[in-house]
Amino acid sequence: MSDVNRQIVIKELPSEKLDPSLFEMRDGDLPEPGEGEILVRTLFLSLDAANRAWMQGKTYKSPVLAGEVMHGYSISQVVTSNSEKFAVGDVVEGQGNWQEYAILPERQAGKVVARGPLSHQMSILGVTGLTAYFGLLNVGEPKEGETIVVSAAAGAVGNVVGQIGKIKGCRVVGIAGSDEKCKWLTDELGFDAAINYKSENVFQALKEACPDGIDVYFDNVGGEILGNVLRQMNLHGRIACCGAVSQYDTGQPDPSPAGLPGILVVNRIKMQGFIVMDFYAEKRKACDEIAQWVEEGKLKIKEDIIDGLENAPAALVGLLHGENYGKRMIKVSDPTS
Amino acid sequence: MSDVNRQIVIKELPSEKLDPSLFEMRDGDLPEPGEGEILVRTLFLSLDAANRAWMQGKTYKSPVLAGEVMHGYSISQVVTSNSEKFAVGDVVEGQGNWQEYAILPERQAGKVVARGPLSHQMSILGVTGLTAYFGLLNVGEPKEGETIVVSAAAGAVGNVVGQIGKIKGCRVVGIAGSDEKCKWLTDELGFDAAINYKSENVFQALKEACPDGIDVYFDNVGGEILGNVLRQMNLHGRIACCGAVSQYDTGQPDPSPAGLPGILVVNRIKMQGFIVMDFYAEKRKACDEIAQWVEEGKLKIKEDIIDGLENAPAALVGLLHGENYGKRMIKVSDPTS
Repeated sequence: MSDVNRQIVIKELPSEKLDPSLFEMRDGDLPEPGEGEILVRTLFLSLDAANRAWMQGKTYKSPVLAGEVMHGYSISQVVTSNSEKFAVGDVVEGQGNWQEYAILPERQAGKVVARGPLSHQMSILGVTGLTAYFGLLNVGEPKEGETIVVSAAAGAVGNVVGQIGKIKGCRVVGIAGSDEKCKWLTDELGFDAAINYKSENVFQALKEACPDGIDVYFDNVGGEILGNVLRQMNLHGRIACCGAVSQYDTGQPDPSPAGLPGILVVNRIKMQGFIVMDFYAEKRKACDEIAQWVEEGKLKIKEDIIDGLENAPAALVGLLHGENYGKRMIKVSDPTS
Repeated sequence: MSDVNRQIVIKELPSEKLDPSLFEMRDGDLPEPGEGEILVRTLFLSLDAANRAWMQGKTYKSPVLAGEVMHGYSISQVVTSNSEKFAVGDVVEGQGNWQEYAILPERQAGKVVARGPLSHQMSILGVTGLTAYFGLLNVGEPKEGETIVVSAAAGAVGNVVGQIGKIKGCRVVGIAGSDEKCKWLTDELGFDAAINYKSENVFQALKEACPDGIDVYFDNVGGEILGNVLRQMNLHGRIACCGAVSQYDTGQPDPSPAGLPGILVVNRIKMQGFIVMDFYAEKRKACDEIAQWVEEGKLKIKEDIIDGLENAPAALVGLLHGENYGKRMIKVSDPTS
């Protein structure tokens, strides 16, 4: 075991767009776990659009502050345990942040029992897959034959939402940022249609792709696209509000979509924010179902794994610019068996 | 029976605020019911903020157009029946509009079985009471001990929402437009607190009146007040979107409240529009429960009945200016027994 802890600190919060130059690597000391704590070594680090939102202030978790080790969710392996709940060698998930080693209080760590490759615990069988599953099924409540629209559709969560929508017998339309992504969604993942929001008139394209209107919108982006969808929602439509990535990487968020709340009243629409943890009581059942779909070939797994902690800043910035297909993560180290 | 049908026409749609001068009375012909239709005589005409929204365009019903008899819900009595479902003398509800006599297709009329005074079928046991009941209980889903905020709290629906909230064991805070109304809410109806939005800083006043945050918001007004409430909603809060009266009587609606949809995600808030008819499968059970609360003295009925069809324009404008306490309606004629 090394006696230094390589870490990435955010030197300064972005006032406009995030840039890799705002981060810096440093060698920290290897921390000592206290009572009820574990020392873990990071295996995979999750990159998420939400990481940028954490720089804007308090969200569902504490904000990222200048000078801190950058926050991030991780899958790690226990190196030293001062907890009866964890043994050395156990694989755990938690907020390990952008560093090689981390201290986790036992109540903030969860044991991971891998099915297949460990990276799947960060994609299809982890927060990503479960966010898609619970957000679509428990919040969006699609019925067979309905039309689902999902934004950031080629992203980690979006592509899974669309695939689950198809499994449930719905018409699925994805919104993504390039023709290549759109082609991937329709040709590889079975989406019924895909819209390139950078080159198409989204309102018009939605009208064509959703001849029966929109029943469920899984919203990853907020902003103008949400506004375009809202005006085409059917009576009793449901919007699962998962994120608002169009508003994260900026110092000047757009105004809210026009016509709220009137448009909700007139069309009896439900807009509901959610976070995957809200549904963890049903986590095991969901994982079983997802794993079965994967096994049956109904659900394809798309991971974008980048090697090396030092590449996290550029990889996060790239994610915010829409580089990734599927779940982007950093492989920090290999597990010891 | 008269052979003229006194009617009120809206000559011109308002470009800014509605004004009584935009209406005019006229003597129409007494219409003849066709097959499956009934001729009814208007007894009570409902005045609602939504009447103004109908002038802005299509809502959950067809818009009001210049030159038409003004639209409105009514309780009426059958004068001539060409329907097997209705007999002469039956009392029915439907969209009779601002006139003494109306034709209703049988499928657009519902038989009214009065319990107590007939006006109660337009207030506590009609659309008003049921809107409060279903919106609060089925959409807002309050739990005992939670904090409910309701806007337009002295209005037809709002005052009932607050009273039902108290019956359910919640802390209830009303927002209304005068000190006198606020006093009525707290002293007569048992609200825990009331805020005069015209004289107080609503954000600050809510903070003081809701020390444990806001769990349920029954929104009748939209606009700035919704924005102030949104920023104080608790995790997993519910907003029942009933109307947006602050945006109806104007040619220039305000922008939507800031921070949507981000604020919904972070705090996992549900915003849901609804219309009372969505819940009519449970109507009988709801009416029974409401009637029982009234009988037990737990629910007070406040009606604001104005005599004479000719007074409808000024009464509607007055309602939009916040004149009324409780349910405002026009008494057009007496039933024949």
